[in-house]
Amino acid sequence: MSEIIITLPDGSERTYEQGVSALDVAKDISEGLARNVLAAKVNGEVWDATRPIQESATLQLLTWNDEEGKSTMWHSSAHLMAEALEALYPGVKLGIGPPVDGGFYYDVDFGDQEFDSENLKAIEDKMLELARQKNEYVRKDISKADAIAYYQEKGDEYKLELLEDLEDGQITFYTQGNFTDLCRGPHIPHTGFVKAAKVLNVAGAYWRGDENRKQLTRLYAITFPKQKELKQHLELLEEAKKRDHRKIGKELELFTFSEKVGKGLPLWLPKGAVLRERLENFLKKAQVKSGYEQVVTPHIGGKELYITSGHYAKYGEDSFQPINTPAEGEEFLLKPMNCPHHCEIFKSRPRSYKELPVRYAEFGTVYRYEQSGELHGLTRVRGFTQDDAHIFCRPDQVKEEFAKVIDLVLYVFKALGFAEFTAQISLRDPENPEKYIGKDEDWDRAEQEITEVAKEKGLNTVVELGEAAFYGPKLDFMVKDALGRSWQLGTIQVDYNLPKRFELEYIGSDNQKHQPVMIHRAPFGSMERFVAILIESTGGDFPLWLAPEQIAVLPISEKYHEYAKNLYTTLQEHDIRGIIDERDEKIGKKIRDAEVKKIPFMLIVGEQEAESGTVALRAHGKGDQGSMKIEEFINFFNQTVTELLNNGN
Amino acid sequence: MSEIIITLPDGSERTYEQGVSALDVAKDISEGLARNVLAAKVNGEVWDATRPIQESATLQLLTWNDEEGKSTMWHSSAHLMAEALEALYPGVKLGIGPPVDGGFYYDVDFGDQEFDSENLKAIEDKMLELARQKNEYVRKDISKADAIAYYQEKGDEYKLELLEDLEDGQITFYTQGNFTDLCRGPHIPHTGFVKAAKVLNVAGAYWRGDENRKQLTRLYAITFPKQKELKQHLELLEEAKKRDHRKIGKELELFTFSEKVGKGLPLWLPKGAVLRERLENFLKKAQVKSGYEQVVTPHIGGKELYITSGHYAKYGEDSFQPINTPAEGEEFLLKPMNCPHHCEIFKSRPRSYKELPVRYAEFGTVYRYEQSGELHGLTRVRGFTQDDAHIFCRPDQVKEEFAKVIDLVLYVFKALGFAEFTAQISLRDPENPEKYIGKDEDWDRAEQEITEVAKEKGLNTVVELGEAAFYGPKLDFMVKDALGRSWQLGTIQVDYNLPKRFELEYIGSDNQKHQPVMIHRAPFGSMERFVAILIESTGGDFPLWLAPEQIAVLPISEKYHEYAKNLYTTLQEHDIRGIIDERDEKIGKKIRDAEVKKIPFMLIVGEQEAESGTVALRAHGKGDQGSMKIEEFINFFNQTVTELLNNGN
Repeated sequence: MSEIIITLPDGSERTYEQGVSALDVAKDISEGLARNVLAAKVNGEVWDATRPIQESATLQLLTWNDEEGKSTMWHSSAHLMAEALEALYPGVKLGIGPPVDGGFYYDVDFGDQEFDSENLKAIEDKMLELARQKNEYVRKDISKADAIAYYQEKGDEYKLELLEDLEDGQITFYTQGNFTDLCRGPHIPHTGFVKAAKVLNVAGAYWRGDENRKQLTRLYAITFPKQKELKQHLELLEEAKKRDHRKIGKELELFTFSEKVGKGLPLWLPKGAVLRERLENFLKKAQVKSGYEQVVTPHIGGKELYITSGHYAKYGEDSFQPINTPAEGEEFLLKPMNCPHHCEIFKSRPRSYKELPVRYAEFGTVYRYEQSGELHGLTRVRGFTQDDAHIFCRPDQVKEEFAKVIDLVLYVFKALGFAEFTAQISLRDPENPEKYIGKDEDWDRAEQEITEVAKEKGLNTVVELGEAAFYGPKLDFMVKDALGRSWQLGTIQVDYNLPKRFELEYIGSDNQKHQPVMIHRAPFGSMERFVAILIESTGGDFPLWLAPEQIAVLPISEKYHEYAKNLYTTLQEHDIRGIIDERDEKIGKKIRDAEVKKIPFMLIVGEQEAESGTVALRAHGKGDQGSMKIEEFINFFNQTVTELLNNGN
Repeated sequence: MSEIIITLPDGSERTYEQGVSALDVAKDISEGLARNVLAAKVNGEVWDATRPIQESATLQLLTWNDEEGKSTMWHSSAHLMAEALEALYPGVKLGIGPPVDGGFYYDVDFGDQEFDSENLKAIEDKMLELARQKNEYVRKDISKADAIAYYQEKGDEYKLELLEDLEDGQITFYTQGNFTDLCRGPHIPHTGFVKAAKVLNVAGAYWRGDENRKQLTRLYAITFPKQKELKQHLELLEEAKKRDHRKIGKELELFTFSEKVGKGLPLWLPKGAVLRERLENFLKKAQVKSGYEQVVTPHIGGKELYITSGHYAKYGEDSFQPINTPAEGEEFLLKPMNCPHHCEIFKSRPRSYKELPVRYAEFGTVYRYEQSGELHGLTRVRGFTQDDAHIFCRPDQVKEEFAKVIDLVLYVFKALGFAEFTAQISLRDPENPEKYIGKDEDWDRAEQEITEVAKEKGLNTVVELGEAAFYGPKLDFMVKDALGRSWQLGTIQVDYNLPKRFELEYIGSDNQKHQPVMIHRAPFGSMERFVAILIESTGGDFPLWLAPEQIAVLPISEKYHEYAKNLYTTLQEHDIRGIIDERDEKIGKKIRDAEVKKIPFMLIVGEQEAESGTVALRAHGKGDQGSMKIEEFINFFNQTVTELLNNGN
């Protein structure tokens, strides 16, 4: 046997005999480490930790802390659940069982047996019982003929159908305990890693997603290496359910939908519209400081515009269809993007190198068709408003403009309290350079500059080769919310394509025509999606400066209505917005209702306050804050807003 | 002969013999008055001043100061021009020759003769020569057969075709000098009133507007009773041309159009977008004070929505056609109005009488198809943003809500400097009560209340019977601009129809379901049209608070760029917007360029200013305003804006 060299992520090299497994290497490093290894990345590909390595390779050990480690454990857990189901429901037939975000599922045909969906605990218990046996997951290459024979004997038509699509010589089975599955792998070393299991949800699912075929039972489940983690996860799910933006959006009257207006087309109720407008004004102000100019463009454009931009080829057939005009036979399209309109504005007169960069910003509402089954609250809609901007600049300005956009995005994140984020830099696939439009030298320069500037700004970056759009490299921000969930927010994209398609040009210092570079950027992404994230992240407790209702003026009785009204008007004049509760209710009830509405400040006024020109201040969730003169309160309010904007919500 | 009683507008009564003419009455009052009488209104109908009055009647004498007096003189002038044309071009054939806004025209077929469009003065001179003859306009009843015989002999197929449509017994001829015309009248007493004439424009016009028929020559002209008035009018036309919003819009870079985006779909350039946003913010602020709530709704809606609202039946066939979705076969329409969306918001939850009125405001962009030939700059477009709002109230709240809307409109007009306006109240046609939807008692009440409230607010009103929409009475504001031109701005409409079609309801104090009344209102009408009017009215010299560029910081040389930049940033922080001119140009050139851009304030900074922390202030069109500390300037600026908003621009 010959020796091979294993290179670890820190660059260190170790020499082993051919056939060594990742688990062997882990044990060699430390027994403790080995006990946590779920799988391994060999030359960038995820493998069973036990699979023999035959050639020199790079190796990364995967544990529960790695996304790919988790995903492997959940894949193995799907097999474990299948084993449990076969034990509980002999003869059950199996469809597919992949890992997904937040667990795994298996599609099952119970045949004539009645599935007891009330007693999911039986499945969980059986899974844990089998897990305790620490059965190894054993990989085996098998010929197509043998695989077919196996499932013919077992009588599972689903697996047989899956087998049809596979090529002989590339088929593997995995076996643990009494269960064998047609599977590409990889898997964890043995079932013992699973220490907690929960079947989360039971739903119907058509075989192969085809509604003309049989409906199977889909069991969603999740497993953990520690009981405590399951408990935490279930609490998080519970919390996420409470914070569902659709639920809170309804409770706080932020937005609604109407069957007649159409699915996926939100109607913003007054409070939602205020929240949205505050976000827009906040960004507009920051943009003015950063040298952006607002423009306003229509929500439709001639078909020719989108043929030029290439959007018609991309969105045309499956999207909202063209709008015809009977008298003149024109064809218009709902705009799926704002960039073509902004290009036309750039083109509306000749440009000189001296006036670049030009930065056009627009809160532009765009329309893209989504199948109704794909729609989800405000996060997946058919019409949404992008906080869009396009920067037209010279190639030598790309770096500085990129830096400025990063500054703006960081300012926005900070003000909104998103402290944890990573930046993904998407570059060309070095092996397929022909896939990309634009000059090589421009790409080289832009990729280098983006990477440099992200470093200079101290961003926590991940570089993904081959993830660039065909028209240019990009940088995307991923933020973590209060529940630790990741959201993609904020994108900055270089574009060499549209300037070419629209034949944009400027006169350079050499008196020659040149093509500008375009940068697309949107810190929020879309107002709809961002508000949804903000709702789920804050649970509806919006930072003071964003709260649609910032104050509630609560007179103790009708006697103080006039004082309360004057107070309310004064606050309104200082752009402090909210409600005045003049109902004939006890003050306790008024306070409780304001708390439910999550209004940050309650201003209670009675005899003492009316006489001394003060308010009794109460903060949401914090109770009494003492008495204040009206002017004092206004100063305190404004100071609080300034601090929040500077230090995050 | 019996006696009849003539009642004058002041209510005074005079007794005359039957057959007296308005001119006789005028002479009886004063010879001076009689010399100015052009026509008369007898029982509300415009008559020849010389026509005998056979029965007791009300009488109003019409002079050049009355719109109907002007219109009569222009109608008579059309005959005069026709006489002149027959003299200059014997055998010319005549189409129609009506008075229009700003003069009159006659459509003419010159046959084989060459029309000398370079020598229009010949026509004007001939008209004045004939006018000096003071030929009387003589009215004559004529049988259809005689009229046909007359035109057959003359060989004028156009008049013969017009005669075909007329009923025997109702045909009149008018003759002055050598010219006779088929005409219903009325006319001025004699041609001598015309003291100045100008042929303004020559254009082609299809006979009866049908492009398949012959193209005639349309001569537009105007006449005046004094030479001086013609001179003033021509100056006004010249000024209007200079102020054309399409011209200024281009010069000041406010908006543009793109062939690819589509005709009638404006693209707002940065400066135009700022102007528009300032107007929106101004109105939003006023609306918050008046208890409006902003909402945001999509620009499309399901076809069903517009079938419910009735808009599909009204706009459907000739407008932008439905948008289909290939996968699910849905049909959407670009919204022609915002009201259906607002109704759906009102309907999104149950409503109590206690929470009414609900006032939903939205700067909602709507799309309506117009033939491309009808489009005109920003005043006639295919997509425009209404400053829309809908008030949902109880019937007993209509008066108060109407009063509040009038207050808001008056505030807006005042702040924008529109001092002269009238309010047209459109009520039901008392003779066709079946044309209207809604309860009689509600109409009676609303009509009475609108009329009352307009009076209480001291509006200069005109009541028009039969001009109400089928769904409710309305009030429209007509404003005069700086050139004395009238524009329809601001509409308030009561609507009993949509609440019924959408089955809107609220629970009353009686615990029963009731239907709310809807009020539509838009002080500006549309942002596009309003900005056009504002441009033409101000000639681009926008009031300080609206000017897209309020200040220009002009450093004398590069040495003071840093001071200038700091100054500029400080102003920006105080929401004072504008430009900084850092070009390597002489200060004189920088000032001239800022003047051309109509920037209200120029802040010139050199050594003295940099040292003392001041600015040398220059006002657009007014020159040097002395030196000021920066803080002083900011205060002065804000004070000026406040004064403008309170006292009109």
